[in-house]
Amino acid sequence: MANYAEIITKIYNDTLAIKDKGSLATYISELANTDSNKFGVYITTVDDASFGIGDYLESFSIQSIVKVLSLAIAYKLFGEDIWKRVDVEPSGNSFNSLIQLEADNGIPRNPFINAGAIVTSDILLSYLPDTRKYFLDFIRELAGNDDLDYCERIADSEWATGYRNIAICNFLKSFDNIQNDPNEVLDLYFNLCSIEVNCKDLSNIFSLFANEGRMLNKNKQVLTKSQTKRINAIMQTCGFYDQSGDFAFRVGLPGKSGVGGGIVAIHPERYAITTWSPKLNEKGNSYRGMYFLENFTTETEFSIF
Amino acid sequence: MANYAEIITKIYNDTLAIKDKGSLATYISELANTDSNKFGVYITTVDDASFGIGDYLESFSIQSIVKVLSLAIAYKLFGEDIWKRVDVEPSGNSFNSLIQLEADNGIPRNPFINAGAIVTSDILLSYLPDTRKYFLDFIRELAGNDDLDYCERIADSEWATGYRNIAICNFLKSFDNIQNDPNEVLDLYFNLCSIEVNCKDLSNIFSLFANEGRMLNKNKQVLTKSQTKRINAIMQTCGFYDQSGDFAFRVGLPGKSGVGGGIVAIHPERYAITTWSPKLNEKGNSYRGMYFLENFTTETEFSIF
Amino acid sequence: MANYAEIITKIYNDTLAIKDKGSLATYISELANTDSNKFGVYITTVDDASFGIGDYLESFSIQSIVKVLSLAIAYKLFGEDIWKRVDVEPSGNSFNSLIQLEADNGIPRNPFINAGAIVTSDILLSYLPDTRKYFLDFIRELAGNDDLDYCERIADSEWATGYRNIAICNFLKSFDNIQNDPNEVLDLYFNLCSIEVNCKDLSNIFSLFANEGRMLNKNKQVLTKSQTKRINAIMQTCGFYDQSGDFAFRVGLPGKSGVGGGIVAIHPERYAITTWSPKLNEKGNSYRGMYFLENFTTETEFSIF
Amino acid sequence: MANYAEIITKIYNDTLAIKDKGSLATYISELANTDSNKFGVYITTVDDASFGIGDYLESFSIQSIVKVLSLAIAYKLFGEDIWKRVDVEPSGNSFNSLIQLEADNGIPRNPFINAGAIVTSDILLSYLPDTRKYFLDFIRELAGNDDLDYCERIADSEWATGYRNIAICNFLKSFDNIQNDPNEVLDLYFNLCSIEVNCKDLSNIFSLFANEGRMLNKNKQVLTKSQTKRINAIMQTCGFYDQSGDFAFRVGLPGKSGVGGGIVAIHPERYAITTWSPKLNEKGNSYRGMYFLENFTTETEFSIF
Repeated sequence: MANYAEIITKIYNDTLAIKDKGSLATYISELANTDSNKFGVYITTVDDASFGIGDYLESFSIQSIVKVLSLAIAYKLFGEDIWKRVDVEPSGNSFNSLIQLEADNGIPRNPFINAGAIVTSDILLSYLPDTRKYFLDFIRELAGNDDLDYCERIADSEWATGYRNIAICNFLKSFDNIQNDPNEVLDLYFNLCSIEVNCKDLSNIFSLFANEGRMLNKNKQVLTKSQTKRINAIMQTCGFYDQSGDFAFRVGLPGKSGVGGGIVAIHPERYAITTWSPKLNEKGNSYRGMYFLENFTTETEFSIF
Repeated sequence: MANYAEIITKIYNDTLAIKDKGSLATYISELANTDSNKFGVYITTVDDASFGIGDYLESFSIQSIVKVLSLAIAYKLFGEDIWKRVDVEPSGNSFNSLIQLEADNGIPRNPFINAGAIVTSDILLSYLPDTRKYFLDFIRELAGNDDLDYCERIADSEWATGYRNIAICNFLKSFDNIQNDPNEVLDLYFNLCSIEVNCKDLSNIFSLFANEGRMLNKNKQVLTKSQTKRINAIMQTCGFYDQSGDFAFRVGLPGKSGVGGGIVAIHPERYAITTWSPKLNEKGNSYRGMYFLENFTTETEFSIF
Repeated sequence: MANYAEIITKIYNDTLAIKDKGSLATYISELANTDSNKFGVYITTVDDASFGIGDYLESFSIQSIVKVLSLAIAYKLFGEDIWKRVDVEPSGNSFNSLIQLEADNGIPRNPFINAGAIVTSDILLSYLPDTRKYFLDFIRELAGNDDLDYCERIADSEWATGYRNIAICNFLKSFDNIQNDPNEVLDLYFNLCSIEVNCKDLSNIFSLFANEGRMLNKNKQVLTKSQTKRINAIMQTCGFYDQSGDFAFRVGLPGKSGVGGGIVAIHPERYAITTWSPKLNEKGNSYRGMYFLENFTTETEFSIF
Repeated sequence: MANYAEIITKIYNDTLAIKDKGSLATYISELANTDSNKFGVYITTVDDASFGIGDYLESFSIQSIVKVLSLAIAYKLFGEDIWKRVDVEPSGNSFNSLIQLEADNGIPRNPFINAGAIVTSDILLSYLPDTRKYFLDFIRELAGNDDLDYCERIADSEWATGYRNIAICNFLKSFDNIQNDPNEVLDLYFNLCSIEVNCKDLSNIFSLFANEGRMLNKNKQVLTKSQTKRINAIMQTCGFYDQSGDFAFRVGLPGKSGVGGGIVAIHPERYAITTWSPKLNEKGNSYRGMYFLENFTTETEFSIF
């Protein structure tokens, strides 16, 4: 573990030294208020070591990273039936495209593009009496942090500018792939995206996927081994929109990014690592996070491939 | 290793017992002459154990599996420059689609769709004086089988019905992404696809990708560790056309399929395994091969995720 | 004129004699309640003759035919500026497709697909204080029928199932091509589509386009000659969704259809003719209406070409 | 007729006075050698008047304008059967796109995009023993000019850079919509496009479409009235690639353009008018030609709408 700390520190400093070529997400106005120089990294290993550097205790907006968690709950509770309503193929298009949705008759290509996550939100809403509380309890226990919460300010900001998502949800409804009132589904979806977390929280939560579905330290099996592997596989092929192939190519780990600037990557049976730096490359993924992770797996010579 | 043999034998028999729902590829007329009941499996492990069952010594047409090998040589000889001419993203379309090619100005989405492999053929042709001989020497050494050869009958059959590929190659040329005469490029491409191999050959050849780029038993580094990992990553995200996400989801290993009915899958640092059964599912991948491999990684509880 | 009456009567009877191969529009539930056997035809000529046959005095839902009238008002009031927000090219796609909208950054291909008509509704809403009243006054005067009105029942039914249109409007808003609240724009749009008219009303209203923009009998110039010609040109190239080319080919007149079963066609400087029969072909255009009009222009040997 | 001459002269001079914002087609290298300042206009009227101005007797490459003539012969000889192999809908895409062809299973959207004209070339080749001679005789008689001929230099130049067309023809063949050897079809297609004509020739040839299918002065019925109207309708909806709607909107006449800089427009029952100026706008249509024709129909207040 000393090893991870040393390598992470070195690459963290290397990354700080290069020019951050990304730019802040602006389409959700509240996100534009983030301090763009923040940069944090945190690793949680399955042998229960951990290490953080930089702004790893500062909260940021979870955004699309939450899509993995809503998929996990839907899969855990409702099993293989969910794949009738969302596919597991990479999309080859940007995160909020409607084109493929039309060609595929309302079945989203995968659960990590917006359309797919809106469908999993609809599934949760149909079957969980108090969806929002259930979700919060779920991630609080995994993070070991009872302060995790929705951020009303961000959720409101998403509503105010979320016309593309409103379009997607109603488009899905026109194909009968939304069961609830579109406005309620969107409200849940925007709230899930608004949750505030820090790097440590995310690495702790996602250690589940590095640990075959068991909670660290608790010996509690949250997902089956098979479900865990499959969610990891979807992260590998679909976690970075139309940069998914590139992330597999450069970093070689399953992972998921969000426009809040966070990226989580998983090395099965070893660790979950989270980076946070708000400026995004032109594909919507954190510029420094991508740089850090590429160098991290190159330096450690660890990837799944 | 005894373990692998036992599991393979069991699942081989299970697979024989289910109804083979696939159907023979017919668009290359010669392929339609294959005995559709053939079924072979062969595993080559990095600790130099090996095991075969069924028709694992019978030759079949390598078809698209060869795309991994032409990529490997192009990458080995010409380095990162090749990525200016072909991308590494999953396509979200079928193997011979021209749609994305037009939207992407003649840069194929990845080297494992036809357009991408035609570009790597063009690269080989530009820089290797005797491309066909070089290629044969390369795979004969890896397979330890000097009988490997092109099959003129199959190559002719591909020419006779390959209008879609002729279209793709000339379309690429119209975007200046082919440097040689399209007919010469296609001739190389059709010949590469025509090579006849058996399951044992393929597992031996592909053990390179399970062994960090080194030849088994020879301590000869053919590809760098980084090149090997990256090719594995592309196999993971792009190896099965628009069933790539599904293969990652069900099998959880990098791999590549061909319309000849072969599938190779890699478990890095462990093994390469090849299945062959000619009947294909509607996505163009061997029906029994997919079934076998899904059950093999489920049973062994080994996947990379 | 006696001539028109005779020919119309003959072809009306011929049309009744063939099997009506169309089927009722069902996606707006209220429309499914129409008596599917209705069939009416009415012609209004610029020399102020007129003739009707069959159910030409029965009211039906104007639906997409209204798009010509909202375009006419927007063009009349706001001039060439409207073409910054909507193009005049045939779409090559079905009436409610979102694909081209994404490729064209939120500029609808033409004002006669849903996206385009939603934009013209937005324009009307921005600049007319009492849009709904203005619109009704406009068409009542042209029809010479003060009973023309919105149909709340139909408008409600469109809202209840109009998810695709809600998606389109919010999608347009995401490209900044809607200035008002999407719900208000949609409310106007659904109301416009709900207006109830009969064949005589429509022919009288559309005689404007056959008469170089002047009202018959009133010598009142409503549109300029140039505006009239241009709207006719758009009807010719875009009036029948992806059957526009076919309508030009078979009928040879500018026109516009609606899913309520109405079709209006214009012979500039001669007449406007309306047919109504509720069963639609697979392209969404009245089966009998298409048949009648093809035979009408064949028989009269009159078309604009 | 004096009237036409006067108006044409005035607008010709107005057009010369504005800056020519177009640029020469360069993708066929021989076309780039044209003197870009040439500008000619010629009108042929059905009452057998005629008038020319500027470079109306200088020859240029007919290019896509020939597509109307190959369609006319195919339609004349083989009747309605040809519509099984090519549709009559506007494409909404550029002239050499392959996208729609894939979506439509190899049926070109209309005979005036390259794919469609390649199919009509294939039809001519299948059924006419000496296609090239037949074609030349056909247009020589209509033009009253026995010097009309293929231009080997241009045809060779098209072959040398025509990879996109080679792609299209082989793509069509892969859908079984080409019956002959693709190379023979392309050879005919490139030769047809290479024919050299002047404005007077074209107006004389196309007077056929203004005269209900009869040759002027000869009382010879070449096409039926119905065939003529239908070809005019296709010119109206599909004659200018993805500027077809705009041409209908601005000019209001059926017509056809070519990348050689020519445009022919038809006023049924009145005249055929040809303009030639080599510099093209970004849609591939002659800049000055579009400007001239828009002003000509505005000034004469004659359009079909």
